[in-house]
Amino acid sequence: MDLKAVILLSGGLDSATVLAIAKRNGFRVFALSFDYEQRHSVELEKAKILAKKFNVEDHRIVKLDLFGGSALNDNIPVPKNRNEKEISSGIPITYVPARNTIFLANALAYAEVNKCLNIFVGVNAVDYSGYPDCRPEYISAFEKLATLATKSGIENETKIKIHAPLIQLSKAEIIRKGLELGVDYQLTHSCYDPNDQGLSCGVCDSCALRLKGFQEAGETDPVDYALSS
Amino acid sequence: MDLKAVILLSGGLDSATVLAIAKRNGFRVFALSFDYEQRHSVELEKAKILAKKFNVEDHRIVKLDLFGGSALNDNIPVPKNRNEKEISSGIPITYVPARNTIFLANALAYAEVNKCLNIFVGVNAVDYSGYPDCRPEYISAFEKLATLATKSGIENETKIKIHAPLIQLSKAEIIRKGLELGVDYQLTHSCYDPNDQGLSCGVCDSCALRLKGFQEAGETDPVDYALSS
Repeated sequence: MDLKAVILLSGGLDSATVLAIAKRNGFRVFALSFDYEQRHSVELEKAKILAKKFNVEDHRIVKLDLFGGSALNDNIPVPKNRNEKEISSGIPITYVPARNTIFLANALAYAEVNKCLNIFVGVNAVDYSGYPDCRPEYISAFEKLATLATKSGIENETKIKIHAPLIQLSKAEIIRKGLELGVDYQLTHSCYDPNDQGLSCGVCDSCALRLKGFQEAGETDPVDYALSS
Repeated sequence: MDLKAVILLSGGLDSATVLAIAKRNGFRVFALSFDYEQRHSVELEKAKILAKKFNVEDHRIVKLDLFGGSALNDNIPVPKNRNEKEISSGIPITYVPARNTIFLANALAYAEVNKCLNIFVGVNAVDYSGYPDCRPEYISAFEKLATLATKSGIENETKIKIHAPLIQLSKAEIIRKGLELGVDYQLTHSCYDPNDQGLSCGVCDSCALRLKGFQEAGETDPVDYALSS
């Protein structure tokens, strides 16, 4: 069994948990993060700290020149103070077109260069039901593509495995799992629209889901929030 | 029918022909090129000229930070003077890991932002039989993924179509097709390893396939070669 894996490490709560899961399962980890001029680029600092703490083999931050069209990397305001129903209905404006496909395509290249047959991604179909590229059928389609796309698929008939261990978990379940594995969530960042000091807003969808997750898990979120309102 | 299409336009012979085919079929074209520090970045100048000549709606050159591991963008010599058997056996060192997956993922994002349901790509399974990501089954897997990946796939149940009109053509057939459609092949660049003046070497695999294609088509290649040897 090949125990090398590429992990998409955003620096958020989910990917930190995935990193801990992969390490616990004995994988040597190659971590991959992206700088796409996201509003919340403070997450990249967290990704660096997490990569170091979890002793990854290599950590690459790849600059991406994306196409805009999202509140995360374009001049569109991040929605705030939405209720649960608003958050879970439809595709949010924070959706970045084809982002997971671009992320996974880069992970595949990085995996091929480092001879990894495993890719871990922290997508979640429960809280982010509105994102097309977080659904199990999407992940399964990418897995098929990945094996067809690469040298190893042709030469050795080896399969690329896409692991999405959080895909069916609630945020509370993810947090419990991570705490069991010793993840220090203070080292993660989730907010879509942090202030100039990098403090989380507490009211964007991502903060709302995170806070609700901690509450449901019966735990306290260790990060600081800039709760002025 | 949506008559808007994204075209992957490298500036080479194949993508120029695909551009002509899409225009002939009535598509409004959004052209996409990549700057990945390829040795043959002169092709990007050709892409700009072709985009202008074919009146595309928009032309984006996206900077990609790829992972190396190929003679095209790493410090590995480009093979020269190989015979036909050598060229067609195995996966060449000019293969860039997961390149077409990264290219198509970007095309998908660009398509989604511009509300295009069609993507054209000049892959070819005949001359490049060694590239895993030029095979029909790969293109078909990407097409399935693309529909699952995007907003339109969820919201309108519309399908993304990946057009690979050259996939089963020989280089000679591609050239004949392009000439019929009025492509000026002087405006294209194929060489993997041009000299400082941007002149094609004439002896790398890409030049060899191009020259053989023109010969078999009974035509003369209009580009200049730096044939010193």
